[in-house]
Amino acid sequence: MNILVANLGSTSFKYRLYRMPEAVELARGSIERIGSAESRSMVSIGEYRNEVVAGVPDHAAAVRQCLTQLTDTDHGCLAKADEVAAIGFKAVHGGRISGVQRIDEALLESMAEMNDVAPAHNPPYIAAMRQLSRQLPEIPLVAAFETGFHQTIPRANATYAIPQDWDRDLNIRRFGFHGASHRYIAQRVAEKFTRNDLRIISCHLGGSSSLTAIRNGQSVATSMGASPQSGILQNNRVGDFDPFVLPLIIRHTGLTLEQVLETLASGGGLLGISGKSGDVRDLEEAAAAGSSESQLALDTFVADIRKYLGWMLVELGGTDVIVFTGGIGENSAAVRWAVCRDLAELGIALDETKNRDAVGEAFIDNDQSHTKVLVMPTNEEIVVASQVFAVLKENYTKNGDTN
Amino acid sequence: MNILVANLGSTSFKYRLYRMPEAVELARGSIERIGSAESRSMVSIGEYRNEVVAGVPDHAAAVRQCLTQLTDTDHGCLAKADEVAAIGFKAVHGGRISGVQRIDEALLESMAEMNDVAPAHNPPYIAAMRQLSRQLPEIPLVAAFETGFHQTIPRANATYAIPQDWDRDLNIRRFGFHGASHRYIAQRVAEKFTRNDLRIISCHLGGSSSLTAIRNGQSVATSMGASPQSGILQNNRVGDFDPFVLPLIIRHTGLTLEQVLETLASGGGLLGISGKSGDVRDLEEAAAAGSSESQLALDTFVADIRKYLGWMLVELGGTDVIVFTGGIGENSAAVRWAVCRDLAELGIALDETKNRDAVGEAFIDNDQSHTKVLVMPTNEEIVVASQVFAVLKENYTKNGDTN
Repeated sequence: MNILVANLGSTSFKYRLYRMPEAVELARGSIERIGSAESRSMVSIGEYRNEVVAGVPDHAAAVRQCLTQLTDTDHGCLAKADEVAAIGFKAVHGGRISGVQRIDEALLESMAEMNDVAPAHNPPYIAAMRQLSRQLPEIPLVAAFETGFHQTIPRANATYAIPQDWDRDLNIRRFGFHGASHRYIAQRVAEKFTRNDLRIISCHLGGSSSLTAIRNGQSVATSMGASPQSGILQNNRVGDFDPFVLPLIIRHTGLTLEQVLETLASGGGLLGISGKSGDVRDLEEAAAAGSSESQLALDTFVADIRKYLGWMLVELGGTDVIVFTGGIGENSAAVRWAVCRDLAELGIALDETKNRDAVGEAFIDNDQSHTKVLVMPTNEEIVVASQVFAVLKENYTKNGDTN
Repeated sequence: MNILVANLGSTSFKYRLYRMPEAVELARGSIERIGSAESRSMVSIGEYRNEVVAGVPDHAAAVRQCLTQLTDTDHGCLAKADEVAAIGFKAVHGGRISGVQRIDEALLESMAEMNDVAPAHNPPYIAAMRQLSRQLPEIPLVAAFETGFHQTIPRANATYAIPQDWDRDLNIRRFGFHGASHRYIAQRVAEKFTRNDLRIISCHLGGSSSLTAIRNGQSVATSMGASPQSGILQNNRVGDFDPFVLPLIIRHTGLTLEQVLETLASGGGLLGISGKSGDVRDLEEAAAAGSSESQLALDTFVADIRKYLGWMLVELGGTDVIVFTGGIGENSAAVRWAVCRDLAELGIALDETKNRDAVGEAFIDNDQSHTKVLVMPTNEEIVVASQVFAVLKENYTKNGDTN
């Protein structure tokens, strides 16, 4: 069974094609600048690379373009388009709906209720999913929500101290996100150590970042809250913020609440503090060249990570494993070093050389460290493919039972 | 020199009178139901107790009533009212003004800029201070801001990831509060251990709660942010909250932003979750009788405290001392026990009996604990009296120099 895993942006469509249950990646590709006259459609199938530049008006056309490339007579990996059993989406915020679900109108409505809460993520996904389900009704669409892995978090770690009818009626609680990545780390650590009872702190650091405490393979606390803008500061999103200063900002700037939130969701984070860039590499360079704002942005980012690392440590009563993953977690030795500095008394100490030289999966703790610390590339797509496969298999089994 | 330390509510005035620098408490009292026809004015001077019930129209009249009781011919501790050298106020939020300052119109304006941010605290203080400075111009008024102790926090621990002109122009950063209490704990621990270089986590748990990490006698991180509603959930205030759900709440409830914030500042916290009470004692009773909402409120409170305990632990790279203070910190053995559970691996372990039986200043850690854990009654008034004394003395010295 072949499953296409899709990663949508408002004008982009990236994908990987897997054969399941073997979890073999057959192809990967991307279509960029959807809606323009010169969209770029790239595909890699084994050693074969192909790029087409031509107008791709919308996401349905993008999927058709991708299917055309995958079924190319000479180089394709599929004989016919219907060999794609389903498209799986790493969907962000389903509000009252979570886990892994077939996409239908009710699911899209539930996502739309959270448009305010996930403004950068939900609207483009909903638009694309709706279009695909209308124009390609022959391909089942499945959403794997980023909140799914965090459904095991105990209520005390997920509750805001608000009137509880708002929790019940409006689904306002700490959902947590990056579920596919944290789930991958939980599974990969269990595999690597051949045991599932380890206490793990998974540090997904990238364009957006979150930490998750994992006990017995399950999420028990995570740094992101009701919205994917909360928790650790992000490339251009604010992270945790105090709502009681909003009236002050509104009065001073003349902006509406929605505009202030839009600013916090796109002009905050590393970009907001530095005034320069939301990219850690740029800021490391600028800080080395003497920019104090860039240094402050990096220092505040590390302080945010350490804040949540502390919470996770106390939540787990100490930890067996810390994993760094995501674009920054995998690549910035400086951030990893700063996050772990001065923690020997709490059982955490890095080896400077191992940390600097880490490539791929690598241990970076030193001999005195009680905690194993690893760099580990994440693989969110394979998690989604597995989840979609499981849902489809269950559906087939159910159908088999009733026939 | 005698200093009156005032604690103001919108219809109340509590005070203690100190002789400085000896720090001898000469009297304490309170005037309640200011503005009603039957205000109650109570005073204790040594063993002497007096209570008067009579109309006290406003805060200036309350101070006059207090001065009348303090100068009572038979039982008073002062011969004349002008033996009060100053009134010191534990003021909450001065925005761009912090530390210890003589009260003048510029200071009151700076406080007024923060009315939105500290709605329960600033307006009644400003009104009372303005009235007192007009009607009792002969008595110097001094404000000791709760934010003052936190001015040593490094910028990375105090910065929000917002456009930095908002930080600069609007004074939006993590200020922290409960400064008088945390300062008292820092000083008292230094005194008790006869050293000032200990790493301390001060847990002020009461009607409102905050944790502060103290290194070398200075605050380096604290749980409250820009407003005193943030951080750990409070009796009826929300604690940390995600602003990106506000549009959802506004649309669903029909409330304005200001009304939603008012609800979060008075109908949240323990009260919001439990739907019953904002008092830990009530909730412990209700939970024991089977109320799951009350248990959830208590569990979420403890989870919030542990979250910040973790941050402080990482910030300090481990801690030498943990102090519990404030009404709940001093009196709830159950909360202390729950906060410290399962932390032996991180060097923190309580003795069940010592914790249960603690009265006054008491060690409650067990023999295996690397961290000393104490219950310690706070004394915010003596801190304010000392700070006011220091400011007045400095003023006198300066005047002496220029004459």
